[in-house]
Amino acid sequence: MKLKSSHSCHGGIVSYYSHAANSTKCDMNFSVFLPEQARYGNCPALYYLAGLTCTEDTFTTKSGAYRLAAELGLIMIAPDTSPRGDHVPDEEGWDFAKGAGFYVDATEEPWNENYNMYSYITEELYELILNKFPLDNNRIGIFGHSMGGHGALTIYLKNKDKFQSVSAFAPIVSPLNCPWGHKALSNYLGEDRATWAKYDACALISAGGNVTSSQPILIDQGINDPFLESQLMPERFESACEDVGQKLILRRHEGYDHGYFFISSFIEDHLKHHVKILD
Amino acid sequence: MKLKSSHSCHGGIVSYYSHAANSTKCDMNFSVFLPEQARYGNCPALYYLAGLTCTEDTFTTKSGAYRLAAELGLIMIAPDTSPRGDHVPDEEGWDFAKGAGFYVDATEEPWNENYNMYSYITEELYELILNKFPLDNNRIGIFGHSMGGHGALTIYLKNKDKFQSVSAFAPIVSPLNCPWGHKALSNYLGEDRATWAKYDACALISAGGNVTSSQPILIDQGINDPFLESQLMPERFESACEDVGQKLILRRHEGYDHGYFFISSFIEDHLKHHVKILD
Repeated sequence: MKLKSSHSCHGGIVSYYSHAANSTKCDMNFSVFLPEQARYGNCPALYYLAGLTCTEDTFTTKSGAYRLAAELGLIMIAPDTSPRGDHVPDEEGWDFAKGAGFYVDATEEPWNENYNMYSYITEELYELILNKFPLDNNRIGIFGHSMGGHGALTIYLKNKDKFQSVSAFAPIVSPLNCPWGHKALSNYLGEDRATWAKYDACALISAGGNVTSSQPILIDQGINDPFLESQLMPERFESACEDVGQKLILRRHEGYDHGYFFISSFIEDHLKHHVKILD
Repeated sequence: MKLKSSHSCHGGIVSYYSHAANSTKCDMNFSVFLPEQARYGNCPALYYLAGLTCTEDTFTTKSGAYRLAAELGLIMIAPDTSPRGDHVPDEEGWDFAKGAGFYVDATEEPWNENYNMYSYITEELYELILNKFPLDNNRIGIFGHSMGGHGALTIYLKNKDKFQSVSAFAPIVSPLNCPWGHKALSNYLGEDRATWAKYDACALISAGGNVTSSQPILIDQGINDPFLESQLMPERFESACEDVGQKLILRRHEGYDHGYFFISSFIEDHLKHHVKILD
């Protein structure tokens, strides 16, 4: 693990790291915010998964999260959104391949060599972070935005031992039912849609079993989000949750779009949501 | 004035504009944050001048200022740092020409055609903003970072009718006495250093006259700023203020560097400093 840079921030430290990852066979980048409280003991932590085109730097510089994270004593981890490097296959466009890992383990050539973001986040990075930073390992939440909201929801729903709380900003809730999902998952997983269901938050919720929880899921969605109707469709998730009795707080915000001005406006509510559950 | 994009943010609106500017003979870019309070009446306002390599987008996305600006009912204006466009002369490197206007009116060829950021900010943009947005015109402050801190201090010291409060993050306080200043001002203003003094915050303070004020100037400076000793030298400003009795709050912060993690850590103190004076 290589420290690339480190910056004092709100009494804590923001650090950027890279490390050679086995799961994605490339150097991966992430940032970590350690609040001052982490000097004196273990702290709860939140993983933030970013959306299409983003990197480990997007949330870190644009969310405005660290003011309250410092106050609440929250460690914040922001990974990159895909494998990187000249040897990693890529494609033209911004909604697939680099910057668009979709938090799945690819099974199709040529993507299956590197595009294993599901295992990277839930196993390799998760273990690395636990080993290297003072996390309270029973108090870890996950949240994200858009493609990263999809990642956060699906990872949470399958890894409740690892992640105890979840929330999302404008998430893709059903890649089975939107163009971004069709493009990415047909490439990463092939045409058999049965294999897509384990990466579909609506399908996972509907499958019941380990998916329900006494803890609410928080989702914020801007009404003026240009992707709301074509890609996001939070009403699908709302109805899936209702059917199985999963508590959901879905807030629709008049005037807000899909970007970080929206995220920064409600970021503090998300931190409070997680802390309430993790405490 | 052309609206390029507009985003809801903390109950207010962040908008990006461009306009054809006479003073710089090119299209200029800026952003404005209007808090919700601006729908119902005039509000106090703060201009933020950014540093070398920055644009109107840097503060807007990275400072985390709008949470408290929304609460305080502050309008925030973030201009670009230089003229732009293919017809505008430029030079290799990041500390002169585009992205480095130094908030002066150039007198030397070829820079004097476009590099008139002093007149642009204090006259052209100032008038435009007053005409187009609901500003309370006796409650306008100015602040900035590094080169923009130099801009804010020098503009404030010469335009107290227009700007009633000032603060800075890691400002260049004396371009007469640092390499960044030597390079920029010798190009923009020529080799006669007597002409530089009107753009030197220390020299303006020392000249007395209209420079003293009953209102304190706030400066925050990171101790781990790599430019502290070679370029910034706040002790020069401290001593100039002391000599003429100008009240200065100069805070030195252990561990903090020159970037936006530093700025975002103390941004709210700056907003409060201005509001206290402007109220």
